Amino acid sequence: MSKLRFRISMSLDGFVAGPNQSVKDPLGVGGERLHEWAISLAEWRAEHGREGGEVNASSAVMKESLANIGATIMGRNMFGGHPGPWDSAKPWTGWWGKKPPFHHPVFVLTHHAREPLELEGGTTFTFVTTGIDDALAQARAAARGKDVALAGGARAAQQYLVAGLVDEMEISLAPTLLGGGERLFDGIGDDLHGLELVRTVPAPKAVHLKFQRR
Amino acid sequence: MSKLRFRISMSLDGFVAGPNQSVKDPLGVGGERLHEWAISLAEWRAEHGREGGEVNASSAVMKESLANIGATIMGRNMFGGHPGPWDSAKPWTGWWGKKPPFHHPVFVLTHHAREPLELEGGTTFTFVTTGIDDALAQARAAARGKDVALAGGARAAQQYLVAGLVDEMEISLAPTLLGGGERLFDGIGDDLHGLELVRTVPAPKAVHLKFQRR
Repeated sequence: MSKLRFRISMSLDGFVAGPNQSVKDPLGVGGERLHEWAISLAEWRAEHGREGGEVNASSAVMKESLANIGATIMGRNMFGGHPGPWDSAKPWTGWWGKKPPFHHPVFVLTHHAREPLELEGGTTFTFVTTGIDDALAQARAAARGKDVALAGGARAAQQYLVAGLVDEMEISLAPTLLGGGERLFDGIGDDLHGLELVRTVPAPKAVHLKFQRR
Repeated sequence: MSKLRFRISMSLDGFVAGPNQSVKDPLGVGGERLHEWAISLAEWRAEHGREGGEVNASSAVMKESLANIGATIMGRNMFGGHPGPWDSAKPWTGWWGKKPPFHHPVFVLTHHAREPLELEGGTTFTFVTTGIDDALAQARAAARGKDVALAGGARAAQQYLVAGLVDEMEISLAPTLLGGGERLFDGIGDDLHGLELVRTVPAPKAVHLKFQRR
């Protein structure tokens, strides 16, 4: 069966987004420091239509995390825009412009129903109001044998972790503090729900920690 | 000048002790999982008068952390026993028995004055009520040119980190969650106060992250 693979960048003090997230500041104050390791990479820049970039120990990790993914799941807060019912007059279409870097079906966990949103380059956002199990079932079907990526944010990840549904987790630990914001592991108890550390890759501005289901 | 070197074990969710610390459970619930990597080592066992143990990637890190230390600073909560004024009828003498594994002067940050406590094997506990700067000055003098170890706990470490007095910090990250307890980086803001990651050592049950002053 296809795996559910979760990867995210986290600060040394456990935050995956800084404080005061907003449309203007989607990663929260200081949150961009979590991703410095990634945006400097040639691999990431190519995925996002940018030129240049470097190749270092993170490159293989990034390449691996993008390989064999057929669908993505994310929470409403990561899809972004605003809380509550969708604004039908001026619908939010995500952070990623007309041609998002996913190029496959994306399933957004939300309490507010909405028609699917088809953008350029093969990315369709489907809004799932029927819970995490149904979103995973839909994503698995759409992935056609490939794996499903769990993109975050914290609350979506917590639900899948507690349910024991995450098969792989790659934490890219940024050696910095955010001092506030969204904590990845808040409220999920005192164990990793069946995951164990299997690989550590030190890299510039990140240490990549890969966990797999025992 | 001699360095102030801080090392501690921390969970993936940022705790250096579990919840509900007590005389019976000094590391808090689950806190012993932070130290599994250490107590299995021949290096640690020898320091604590025990036989056996293994040699792995943590051994060199442990050896380095113990080398060239001439004095130790710790907080009252780490020295332990009970909060508030010392019980003169039955004075608490620390967690480490008659012959503690320090073998050098140890300075305990406290609000409650007390005569020095001399134990076997070269360990004398001196109780400092005049703040972190004075404790560091006393420890440096006692270390006679060697470095000073900052042993913890969280609140003592936070004070030295915020003051920019820590020259080296080694976080031994245990790939597990505690879900509650003492957070190492609570309330110290959104940067590492001049420290940067300089070395990562993956090892069984721990990833050692060494930071130094820029």
